[in-house]
Amino acid sequence: MILSKRPVGMPSEDTWTMQEAEIPSLKEGEFLIQNHYISLDPAMRGWMNDTKSYIPPVAIGDVMRAGSIGTVIKSNNHPKFKEGDVLTGWGGVQQYDVSQGENYYQVDTKLAPMPTYIGTLGMPGMTAYFGILEVGKIKEGDTVLVSGAAGAVGSIVGQIAKIKGCRVVGIAGGPDKCTYLTEELGFDGAIDYKNENIHSGIKQHCPKGIDVYFDNVGGDILDAALARLRMHARVVICGAISQYNNTTAIKGPSNYLSLLVNRATMQGMVVLDYAKKYGEGAMQMGQWMMQGKLKTREDVYEGIENFYPTFQRLFTGEKKGKLVLKVIEE
Amino acid sequence: MILSKRPVGMPSEDTWTMQEAEIPSLKEGEFLIQNHYISLDPAMRGWMNDTKSYIPPVAIGDVMRAGSIGTVIKSNNHPKFKEGDVLTGWGGVQQYDVSQGENYYQVDTKLAPMPTYIGTLGMPGMTAYFGILEVGKIKEGDTVLVSGAAGAVGSIVGQIAKIKGCRVVGIAGGPDKCTYLTEELGFDGAIDYKNENIHSGIKQHCPKGIDVYFDNVGGDILDAALARLRMHARVVICGAISQYNNTTAIKGPSNYLSLLVNRATMQGMVVLDYAKKYGEGAMQMGQWMMQGKLKTREDVYEGIENFYPTFQRLFTGEKKGKLVLKVIEE
Repeated sequence: MILSKRPVGMPSEDTWTMQEAEIPSLKEGEFLIQNHYISLDPAMRGWMNDTKSYIPPVAIGDVMRAGSIGTVIKSNNHPKFKEGDVLTGWGGVQQYDVSQGENYYQVDTKLAPMPTYIGTLGMPGMTAYFGILEVGKIKEGDTVLVSGAAGAVGSIVGQIAKIKGCRVVGIAGGPDKCTYLTEELGFDGAIDYKNENIHSGIKQHCPKGIDVYFDNVGGDILDAALARLRMHARVVICGAISQYNNTTAIKGPSNYLSLLVNRATMQGMVVLDYAKKYGEGAMQMGQWMMQGKLKTREDVYEGIENFYPTFQRLFTGEKKGKLVLKVIEE
Repeated sequence: MILSKRPVGMPSEDTWTMQEAEIPSLKEGEFLIQNHYISLDPAMRGWMNDTKSYIPPVAIGDVMRAGSIGTVIKSNNHPKFKEGDVLTGWGGVQQYDVSQGENYYQVDTKLAPMPTYIGTLGMPGMTAYFGILEVGKIKEGDTVLVSGAAGAVGSIVGQIAKIKGCRVVGIAGGPDKCTYLTEELGFDGAIDYKNENIHSGIKQHCPKGIDVYFDNVGGDILDAALARLRMHARVVICGAISQYNNTTAIKGPSNYLSLLVNRATMQGMVVLDYAKKYGEGAMQMGQWMMQGKLKTREDVYEGIENFYPTFQRLFTGEKKGKLVLKVIEE
């Protein structure tokens, strides 16, 4: 799937072009991997803008960037990976990738199924783990509010905060997602931003205010959270999905002076900075999963030709948990 | 000077009422202090709003809150302070105050003149000292940008950053203030926001970007600074003078996602939190002043009846350095 033009606002079907190509022959030290699953994440929208960011934009004409998991089907003397190895990496929105192995890691599918390795044990899980622990600096007894709470990152953030003894409130769209948070994931409260007033919801569920707000959405929800910070609160800026498809200027948080009043901190994070510690995060989260403390849910769609309608679900919210596309040619 | 009503937008002359009253007789343990000077600060505007903040609002009918310095002229067995002692504290916009001594501290006018004790050695100086060192966490070689740079806080922030080996750029209004920054205070650069494009000014003077931005003003200048942050930058939110008299919602920083891209931190501060360490700050700044490394400038106006036109200068910028009103009855 080739990025064919830079979208303004919400991408449309012709933002990408499906292109078939011959699999190139392997040079010495290269391998060919067949992608089984690719990861669909809100961050992809940002990679399509031609602006300075934490990672270069995807060039027009290049394969759309995406996290992936697949199996090595041929290796031309690659020093680390051989046929049959299952690797996760940046395979892109395509069915095969030829690589020298940069940023590919081998995983063990006996321990967890493939989609989990690009979800809870992949970027979204690492983002949640390091974001809430190292940037949010949660402590037992904290009131933690998380937006996008039923999503790939938010659902893990909230569960980790519960494991660490926090009171956890999630914000999500629709009664089903809210029930999922409280009934299945053990959140202490959930606010349905599509059907409830966000201000009164936060007031009701966080009567003493918020110690840590983990923001995936930006916009009015960020402002509402800022209005209820406690002293020395931490606001983790992980994403701003409500703003990614804006055609006008991003809405800045009008209530940012709450940071002053409450001596609070707002800090941005990018998961790539924690790459050296992914192993630690995966080990800990794998353990929690085996103990039944951390639940993970992937919503898997099929067919690379369905990339665009599946991608759209990131922004409409019509998905349950981590969004994954099965692309393997069968 | 009594707060007679809550202003909407910029206060007007009838926001306050001048009122004469008999000096009450002193109870056991009280003293009477004659105010010589009062401190005029942007924060006063915030204290007039009936909203939750870091300090309760001034009540309608109460004396307007202000920092002050004066001389004890009568003491009815106060355990610490006696006639002739010079004290600084929250004496308010009035000529005399009766107190039991809470938040009054004795100072030595042989070491520095009275206005300096409510300027560089008072709240503005402490705000600068703890703000740039403890919140800004400057290190040698950092590029430091400060707004309101010719003001009571900003001028000290910039000089401390110079002492600590940083490259310092100030933003101020008008060529006189900019010349003052570079010629007299040793700033490496100055941007005149009234006559220059702020974006190109920052680009020119901070070609490698900003490590620490100390914000006194908010609004468009905050947004321009956010757009040029370096990795792991720190933004100190000290004030937002451009927004204090807004009658519409505060302008939030549209570029706040720069915090994410640059893994940067935006943190609010209130000087009152550092009260236990004021002694340390005053000692260090006093030493720098004696060594000629830290210059201080107060702009002193006279007469309590001139409170309102002097207060206005905070927002018009028609002042040079720390704004002080001499109120002593002579």
